[in-house]
Amino acid sequence: MASPTSILSLLLLAAVVSSAEVIRMYPREHLVRLDSDPECESWKFSVEVNAAGSWSSIPRPCVSFVQDYFNTGRYLSDSISVASYSENFALSVNVADGDGMDAWVFDVDETLLSNLPYYKDNGFGSEPYNETSFNEWVYKGLAPVLPASLTLYKRVKKLGFKIFILTGRAEFQRAITEQNLIDAGYSGWEKLILRGHQDEGKKATLYKSEKRDELVKQGYRIQGNSGDQWSDLMGFALAKRSFKLPNPMYYVS
Amino acid sequence: MASPTSILSLLLLAAVVSSAEVIRMYPREHLVRLDSDPECESWKFSVEVNAAGSWSSIPRPCVSFVQDYFNTGRYLSDSISVASYSENFALSVNVADGDGMDAWVFDVDETLLSNLPYYKDNGFGSEPYNETSFNEWVYKGLAPVLPASLTLYKRVKKLGFKIFILTGRAEFQRAITEQNLIDAGYSGWEKLILRGHQDEGKKATLYKSEKRDELVKQGYRIQGNSGDQWSDLMGFALAKRSFKLPNPMYYVS
Repeated sequence: MASPTSILSLLLLAAVVSSAEVIRMYPREHLVRLDSDPECESWKFSVEVNAAGSWSSIPRPCVSFVQDYFNTGRYLSDSISVASYSENFALSVNVADGDGMDAWVFDVDETLLSNLPYYKDNGFGSEPYNETSFNEWVYKGLAPVLPASLTLYKRVKKLGFKIFILTGRAEFQRAITEQNLIDAGYSGWEKLILRGHQDEGKKATLYKSEKRDELVKQGYRIQGNSGDQWSDLMGFALAKRSFKLPNPMYYVS
Repeated sequence: MASPTSILSLLLLAAVVSSAEVIRMYPREHLVRLDSDPECESWKFSVEVNAAGSWSSIPRPCVSFVQDYFNTGRYLSDSISVASYSENFALSVNVADGDGMDAWVFDVDETLLSNLPYYKDNGFGSEPYNETSFNEWVYKGLAPVLPASLTLYKRVKKLGFKIFILTGRAEFQRAITEQNLIDAGYSGWEKLILRGHQDEGKKATLYKSEKRDELVKQGYRIQGNSGDQWSDLMGFALAKRSFKLPNPMYYVS
């Protein structure tokens, strides 16, 4: 398969050619030279709005772009922005008068916790996923908090939402995941849901939809859902509002 | 309601404070000073991934940011990137052996056609939506083509997909919309679907879902759906793959 970069170059050419065929040209200033790294910005755009679909590693020309995205604070800023909109929505839900059945679902990796120290040592997502080495990292229990998520988590909990933590991590990683969450500052969740034997091999969208559906069948109203993957947020038994956190490092289908 | 900017500042502060409470600090380099206009970049991120939810006009501090987004070619580049992923998916569908029932749905405004000349004269989305003046613009029939969409449209058509154009524009705008599409280089669609009397007052997500559902009931397999609004892409009778085009100027619920 051609790389996204070469496809982009071809399409840019095609777009310029085809725009000449039509009677009304696109405004000329749209064809000026692009900013630095526009192709990586656009790759990130497609990835974050899920237009890119399934992908296995970041394009090699975008490794330093992704590194800069984390190191210059853009990542932190984006996650804070999403958290602020999440909180605005949480404040609009009338939880106080409720029956204790208003729920908020949080994912773990790249949502409550950050695996950035691991990905920093492994090419920021430019290397293929290595389950063995990632699991070794998980077992250290050293994933730092994503600060905006901790702030949101505490406020959502204080508002009276029941918190469900729904992760693609496996049941055998329960103890270390709990400990890592506690060490990172999280507490007071209703339930931590991990993949059991019956969930092995299921796509994340299906596994997470089924687990949300179980909550709905127990009478919970899933108001908010925070996750860095579209597979955290799509499928069925959807939350009233879903909040996509940034993650230009990897894709989970 | 507090502005997104002030909320962002507050949350940034809160995040820094709360990160100090936990035992493992977020890597220090994540707290360096942000790039220029990081708040507008992050506002755009939240808008494009639909975390922002409903919004009526772009934040005043981000007007020049949005202007630059269009004038420096980032918009064009983002739309080309999404089109390239759309085409990759289209090529993966086995249409040639099909029964003529593989469909692709395109939205009109900010998808096939661009209303940028109008929005340039009206503050790039910083002014509240004015239905009267926007309809006057529509009646001119001068909306230019979005080049990446025309390229995609032609390729998707050539691959054998049946093309359905599904727009929030009203039935009384059919003639001028058809003419504008033709002038912009589009041809050969199966059906142009506009809002009829029975669709008045319906939210876009419901109206568009119902129209897609009619296609599904006629036996069409909606493989791809291209639109600049999440209300083009969400709801029911979803396409197999949905492609969100950029639009930081306005929101349609």
